[in-house]
Amino acid sequence: MTPQPNPQVGAAVKAADRAHVFHSWSAQELIDPLAVAGAEGSYFWDYEGNRYLDFTSGLVYTNIGYQHPKVVAAIQEQAATMTTFAPAFAVEARSEAARLIAERTPGDLDKIFFTNGGADAVEHATRMARLHTGRPKVLAAYRSYHGGTQQAINLTGDPRRWASDTGTAGVVHFWAPYLYRSRFYAETERQECERALQHLEDTIVFEGAQTVAAIILETVPGTAGIMIPPPGYLAGVRALCDKYGIVFVLDEVMAGFGRTGEWFAADLFDVTPDLMTFAKGVNSGYVPLGGVAISGEIAETFAKRPYPGGLTYSGHPLACAAAVATLNVMADEGVVDHAANLGAQVIEPGLRALAERHPSVGEVRGVGMFWALELVKNRETREPLVPYNATGEANAPMAAFGAAAKKHGLWPFINMNRTHVVPPCNITETEAKEGLAALDAALSVADEHTA
Amino acid sequence: MTPQPNPQVGAAVKAADRAHVFHSWSAQELIDPLAVAGAEGSYFWDYEGNRYLDFTSGLVYTNIGYQHPKVVAAIQEQAATMTTFAPAFAVEARSEAARLIAERTPGDLDKIFFTNGGADAVEHATRMARLHTGRPKVLAAYRSYHGGTQQAINLTGDPRRWASDTGTAGVVHFWAPYLYRSRFYAETERQECERALQHLEDTIVFEGAQTVAAIILETVPGTAGIMIPPPGYLAGVRALCDKYGIVFVLDEVMAGFGRTGEWFAADLFDVTPDLMTFAKGVNSGYVPLGGVAISGEIAETFAKRPYPGGLTYSGHPLACAAAVATLNVMADEGVVDHAANLGAQVIEPGLRALAERHPSVGEVRGVGMFWALELVKNRETREPLVPYNATGEANAPMAAFGAAAKKHGLWPFINMNRTHVVPPCNITETEAKEGLAALDAALSVADEHTA
Repeated sequence: MTPQPNPQVGAAVKAADRAHVFHSWSAQELIDPLAVAGAEGSYFWDYEGNRYLDFTSGLVYTNIGYQHPKVVAAIQEQAATMTTFAPAFAVEARSEAARLIAERTPGDLDKIFFTNGGADAVEHATRMARLHTGRPKVLAAYRSYHGGTQQAINLTGDPRRWASDTGTAGVVHFWAPYLYRSRFYAETERQECERALQHLEDTIVFEGAQTVAAIILETVPGTAGIMIPPPGYLAGVRALCDKYGIVFVLDEVMAGFGRTGEWFAADLFDVTPDLMTFAKGVNSGYVPLGGVAISGEIAETFAKRPYPGGLTYSGHPLACAAAVATLNVMADEGVVDHAANLGAQVIEPGLRALAERHPSVGEVRGVGMFWALELVKNRETREPLVPYNATGEANAPMAAFGAAAKKHGLWPFINMNRTHVVPPCNITETEAKEGLAALDAALSVADEHTA
Repeated sequence: MTPQPNPQVGAAVKAADRAHVFHSWSAQELIDPLAVAGAEGSYFWDYEGNRYLDFTSGLVYTNIGYQHPKVVAAIQEQAATMTTFAPAFAVEARSEAARLIAERTPGDLDKIFFTNGGADAVEHATRMARLHTGRPKVLAAYRSYHGGTQQAINLTGDPRRWASDTGTAGVVHFWAPYLYRSRFYAETERQECERALQHLEDTIVFEGAQTVAAIILETVPGTAGIMIPPPGYLAGVRALCDKYGIVFVLDEVMAGFGRTGEWFAADLFDVTPDLMTFAKGVNSGYVPLGGVAISGEIAETFAKRPYPGGLTYSGHPLACAAAVATLNVMADEGVVDHAANLGAQVIEPGLRALAERHPSVGEVRGVGMFWALELVKNRETREPLVPYNATGEANAPMAAFGAAAKKHGLWPFINMNRTHVVPPCNITETEAKEGLAALDAALSVADEHTA
């Protein structure tokens, strides 16, 4: 786990990357990807000998950190016996992964449709909802991310949608609670909750409830800002869905599998959706895997009528074996409780202490291993440290913050005017404190841009 | 590799599957998935001790067969060092996979955008084409399959589209060549080719060329029936794309990586598309992986302007390491040439001999390890053995054919009135002959349903 500098290999890796790899969400000539030599636990390192504490968990998916030996061994063992097999068959790793996931999902979400990742999970969940109800529309929130394929990106409520949005039929966006920047003119969580529910019901009624197949929400919005829904909000959405015969889809791609200190974020709020999408944490992303957990009622719709969707790698044995091992590791090592406890006892007090010291911190919010610091120019006006969707010079304050964190050995998660604290769910207390200290230093740089 | 009967384990696997796995493209209570205990090379076996020769390559993806020891070892080694890493970084397995793929793709398709599978490759290829041209429409063929996500299924030209098609904007279907059932009233391949190109140009002109972003075609249509395009057709489509400023997308998800006896089917026809989608054979599906190979001109569009798309597992190290090992194995073991030679010397003559003996065989067509037998009630009228999209009783003749093949130890690929001969590209001559003998027996059952 000690980084061995090897700049020549690093240069070759980088050169081949620049020549041949087309990167996600990027202007290909304006990026400069770091060549990564290795990773273990909560750290990764480059070919120059620099080591970073990963407060991003990759893209918020390595919930058990890098290279967990038991999961690595399980992948190796599955590779030795049955690396792959087509989806129309029953295979042990697939059956067992489905059983273990169903054991953990809330309520009667006991049938698992496996996909390759979160985006196609959302594609299939919305298809199931439309076919189950016979209705065309899906309601989704602004300030959300649901995936990069065409249907999923059009459900998304952030700027990543715009380039692919040609006015997609069947998608309607509404506003979810966000008290820190309330547009419901609310002053308390209770007001924000009531008014957000009123807004949602108004939207349903004016769209025509009989045209609405589903409401999809991230249980806790992730990249959009980790806005913990106020008490009663999700139960209120559940009640509206029941009232109007709408399928309730919770997207737990990022929030699921321990991230919030529960197996699923839905458990925090004691709600059961009709469909729940997952990916990432299900096997810590060791092998691509996602899926949809399906209620008994919706499964029944496709009991005698074919479900018109599928994919070659649905329930891929190697991915499922990694899920089985990950879920067992998380249970055996108490990772979910650890995330809850370390979040409450170390991360939250640490972040609140940082907020007291640093005028750039406008709000601290989160739970478990799922935290956001909203950085502002001015705490009174709450003006964001950088404008919405800023790039280049306009984004310089956040870029400076990020560079400072890296200089202090921390790889930070940054989106717009926020940094998210989303380390592996099994990060140690010592590592967490090391990261908080690096954030402390980086926030001093952010402070320079406050008014 | 000898199957050990273990019916108790098989029953448990099956029970957990039935309780918790929601299967692709299926009415959940009307299926009875075979529990598979193991697989090696061209064979798999169940828990009862039955072994099957796999003439399906899974879903036409295990191009090097099951459990190739070198690829298994490469997966194990990559798992031991860097199982996963986020897409924004340069990592060795990712760089090397991109380099090896770019080395094999035609023309200047030298930038590789990695996805999890074929469907999302098609999603992203069509997005790139729309953004590159600023035009809304994609033209796709009837008798095609492009994937299960919303955009990909709407490009698809077979019944799997219907349930998800609510009149999607920006998709127009046209007819590709199919001489055996020509609707261009052609009598020769040359006529079929000329008339199909005329039809395509008419469609472009009447849709308005300035509204057409892309034409997408499977280089050789796969599940739709392995209709080898006549000489000149794909070059003609390339010329139309050039004439009208349209992006030419070839979908090589099924046809690529050795299936046709060339690295890519495009090589058979000496055409270079602007974008090429791949998945399946790139790593024999040992780990989920797909992607888009991108021309220099289209890459340039996203050199200084961000490409608005991505996914968590883009360029997943474990999947890329499996690709590196697979491509090296295919080169070292001459798998592509083997597919061409065995196809020409054993499969084709074997299938033509079957066609002579069995009145149910209407046409034999294909190349390499990519063959279709079209089964008919009557060779003169060419009436299909079962109607288009038949189910239940109407499909009984094909079901009887399939059951007979399995009884003779062959797992056949069946779609509508066709059986496809799509074994691993490295199948041995002995195995191929064993499979042909089983087909011989099964076709005798099909013969009983001819007029």
